[in-house]
Amino acid sequence: MQIIHTISELRQIVSNYKQAGQVIGLVPTMGNLHQGHLQLVEMAHSKTDIVICSIFVNPMQFGEGEDFGQYPRTLDSDIDKLKQVACDIVYVPAVDEMYPESQLDGRDQTQVIVPGVSDVLDGVSRPGHFTGVATIVSKLFNMVQPDKAIFGEKDYQQLQIIRQFVRDLCFPVEIIAHPIVREASGLAMSSRNGYLSNVQKQQAAFLYRTLQILSDQIINGLRDYSMLEKQTELQINKQGFICDYVKICSSDLSPAGEKNHNLVILLAAYLGKTRLIDNIQITL
Amino acid sequence: MQIIHTISELRQIVSNYKQAGQVIGLVPTMGNLHQGHLQLVEMAHSKTDIVICSIFVNPMQFGEGEDFGQYPRTLDSDIDKLKQVACDIVYVPAVDEMYPESQLDGRDQTQVIVPGVSDVLDGVSRPGHFTGVATIVSKLFNMVQPDKAIFGEKDYQQLQIIRQFVRDLCFPVEIIAHPIVREASGLAMSSRNGYLSNVQKQQAAFLYRTLQILSDQIINGLRDYSMLEKQTELQINKQGFICDYVKICSSDLSPAGEKNHNLVILLAAYLGKTRLIDNIQITL
Repeated sequence: MQIIHTISELRQIVSNYKQAGQVIGLVPTMGNLHQGHLQLVEMAHSKTDIVICSIFVNPMQFGEGEDFGQYPRTLDSDIDKLKQVACDIVYVPAVDEMYPESQLDGRDQTQVIVPGVSDVLDGVSRPGHFTGVATIVSKLFNMVQPDKAIFGEKDYQQLQIIRQFVRDLCFPVEIIAHPIVREASGLAMSSRNGYLSNVQKQQAAFLYRTLQILSDQIINGLRDYSMLEKQTELQINKQGFICDYVKICSSDLSPAGEKNHNLVILLAAYLGKTRLIDNIQITL
Repeated sequence: MQIIHTISELRQIVSNYKQAGQVIGLVPTMGNLHQGHLQLVEMAHSKTDIVICSIFVNPMQFGEGEDFGQYPRTLDSDIDKLKQVACDIVYVPAVDEMYPESQLDGRDQTQVIVPGVSDVLDGVSRPGHFTGVATIVSKLFNMVQPDKAIFGEKDYQQLQIIRQFVRDLCFPVEIIAHPIVREASGLAMSSRNGYLSNVQKQQAAFLYRTLQILSDQIINGLRDYSMLEKQTELQINKQGFICDYVKICSSDLSPAGEKNHNLVILLAAYLGKTRLIDNIQITL
């Protein structure tokens, strides 16, 4: 497994693989890898010849007062884990490599803005977050020039935004989604779960049970989505969370209506200081 | 010479050339080709193996009340001219190919925003223009995946913006600048010169003479840039133009100061309804 820090080295290595006709897969991460990430790498292996995992905690996608400083950096153990899933290349750029000469974590440089789908849900709660995501993923695509890139469905809105800008800007990259990977308790795996105590982890599993109950209610015919959303928010708050939102959407994240058969229910809630998100897809 | 209308055909052909080890050059244009464009194609020939000229009048970079509807479309004669300079591929996408499903000429889709250098000069006079330019050029780069792309220095600010977003977003494309091509009168060649009568064309040549005089004044030691700008604006207005701006800048388009040795003087002025721009670079 090669560990690479600079764009120039990366380009050279990828270019050699491409000339040899190899299909390149990219798994972009912020590190602190868990089983969810490793399954993305394994999925990339099944669909490409050479798998590159990038590790970069992107300051541009963190808002003021968010957990950029505190976000867990665990490079040595990440590298061990990636070796175990036979990742070919780990790309670990420094901030200066990603945002050279920036005074504002990239915010004073070129930005990729995805209107519409960035302006709802987490886009409301975390202004600028998705511009940070779309910009860094665009940069990674241009640096790596992968044939395929794999993203987890836990970040459902992020996935839609990436699909959107790839389509709009005609990036020659196939976007592949990987289903959410969950703990035995149902809790969606996330690096931010590391902020939770063991008691909180058990408590956090309530969110997925709530999504399952809500999804059953809809499958069984309840259609007053606005009422269902409010009811579920109350239940989440009663369990000691501070609910940010529960939204029943069509698969493109517009509000769900009677005519939509492919739905996704998304929620965000704080448990203590930790912000958790989860979602579930339903076909009616 | 192949004439291509769709992304899929374009990708197939370019991919074949790339696999054969050919270096790809792109000359993006809005058509209505003149000698300036043809020299870009010739420069591309001298630096690459396969030259692609794109022709697309991009609605997203025209503001309300600007000349999008009126902009000259002269495809047949453009194709004849490109044959004469041995262009290999002409890419002529329809609006639906460039902005599929857009209700707002692409403005409701992903945008590439270049802060700073887009916010001065023409960026003030033509809000949104450079976002339209950066977005369409990003799309063309992703569609064509050229090794090199050639742009004229007449659109000096556009060139700086393209260099900036290519650097910021790490596009693997080398940007090459071509000097301004001028009529015998000194008038910078531009498709918009076609809006001018013969009398106006002679009159328009005054702009370049003005730039030359101003540049001589600076070379000869005058340093009160603000006064020189105002004086020149007055002179331009006296000749029957409506001057939009005259600006003496450092080469990165920040205001020129005592310490700057590489300067560029840029101007924009209306002659009748026609907006003309020109610039001249000086080294002190």
